[in-house]
Amino acid sequence: MTVVAKRLEELGIRLPHPAAAVANYVGFTRVGALLFVSGQLLFGPNGKVAAAHIGKLGPHSSIETVSQAARVCAINLIAQAQAAVDDLDRIAQVVRLGGFFNVGTSFDPLSQAMNGASDLMAEVFAQRGRHARSAVGVAHLPFNALVEIEAIFEVGSES
Amino acid sequence: MTVVAKRLEELGIRLPHPAAAVANYVGFTRVGALLFVSGQLLFGPNGKVAAAHIGKLGPHSSIETVSQAARVCAINLIAQAQAAVDDLDRIAQVVRLGGFFNVGTSFDPLSQAMNGASDLMAEVFAQRGRHARSAVGVAHLPFNALVEIEAIFEVGSES
Amino acid sequence: MTVVAKRLEELGIRLPHPAAAVANYVGFTRVGALLFVSGQLLFGPNGKVAAAHIGKLGPHSSIETVSQAARVCAINLIAQAQAAVDDLDRIAQVVRLGGFFNVGTSFDPLSQAMNGASDLMAEVFAQRGRHARSAVGVAHLPFNALVEIEAIFEVGSES
Repeated sequence: MTVVAKRLEELGIRLPHPAAAVANYVGFTRVGALLFVSGQLLFGPNGKVAAAHIGKLGPHSSIETVSQAARVCAINLIAQAQAAVDDLDRIAQVVRLGGFFNVGTSFDPLSQAMNGASDLMAEVFAQRGRHARSAVGVAHLPFNALVEIEAIFEVGSES
Repeated sequence: MTVVAKRLEELGIRLPHPAAAVANYVGFTRVGALLFVSGQLLFGPNGKVAAAHIGKLGPHSSIETVSQAARVCAINLIAQAQAAVDDLDRIAQVVRLGGFFNVGTSFDPLSQAMNGASDLMAEVFAQRGRHARSAVGVAHLPFNALVEIEAIFEVGSES
Repeated sequence: MTVVAKRLEELGIRLPHPAAAVANYVGFTRVGALLFVSGQLLFGPNGKVAAAHIGKLGPHSSIETVSQAARVCAINLIAQAQAAVDDLDRIAQVVRLGGFFNVGTSFDPLSQAMNGASDLMAEVFAQRGRHARSAVGVAHLPFNALVEIEAIFEVGSES
């Protein structure tokens, strides 16, 4: 078993089937070492967005809930990366995460919420998980989901 | 006539003059095989945003109108790509589209609306048109336009 | 003294200490020639966001204030780039800026406001400062800051 697969097992994370393309776009594209992954909503293992992960954030929203939602998005990003490279040990670096949070009025702790995704990347990829990122509050997301996150990974050369 | 130019003609699409840079930014930049295209609003062939393409989306907005608006943005993206590479057959891949929709209250079918751009890329570039993407609802766009889409293309080596 | 450092001095710009990573993300990552810089808020030289740079934009907001805020974000981006490459003369090109403006109701002149960042890049990097960009109004930003801007730079080979 490879390093990252073993780490996922230790963390108790089972990667979902990556969301299939249902239209003229795909889950990921690749140019040289760069792997671009489509914005992932927080589909759970059953292929549905949990009711707790639908709606708009306000000043009283729970940081824990939103951070957990960002973590689920990150797991979906990793599932796409695995579909792209098969063996996640080939991921040389998490290059960039772009986080979009569905904000109704205001939600100041966007950075803390985004840490749900950033921390997961560090747990899974260790030093290779450290990435550049942006986190912004948007006016709406598909299905009124709480969070959408897109990513760029670096793929190492074949071993 | 090259393959993509012929396809555009079959689709009845005449590329507009790409929006010129009016300030210290440009329509596109290139680094190696990657072509980054600035966010395109939906200027029509007359250089203006159609009145139907101004305003904010709500729960009762027409998916068809928004999808059509996204298609116009995609045509503008292709016009920029042509300005960059001259012969669109040199586009090896549409790598990523980033769609921003101007949402007032809510507009759930963002993915369906974004398909207006994704489908156009598939019609024009066939398999090479399949891309990663994100689609989010934002609070405002320049000129209060309905949609803005940015893109990354892959350019093949000179033939 | 190198060309860009001299230019910064002429402009009276002292780069702040780049915002340190306080979590499992970093200020920048690099893949080959591409340098990805995290979204920068407008921290001033004292490490704080100025009170004038907090809040949401409305139809009566001052373009000058917002443009100035975008300029501060751009200075923070350059500070990150310097931390990445040491000598800013190694920046071959500003590839892309992604601007997020914190809009409450509406603020049409987003492009003009974004010019605060674009003009700064041209002042500092001259022709190499011309970039692709997107500028959108979002529903909220961390700390309720007025603007957040992320960037991609191209790094030239070592001299």
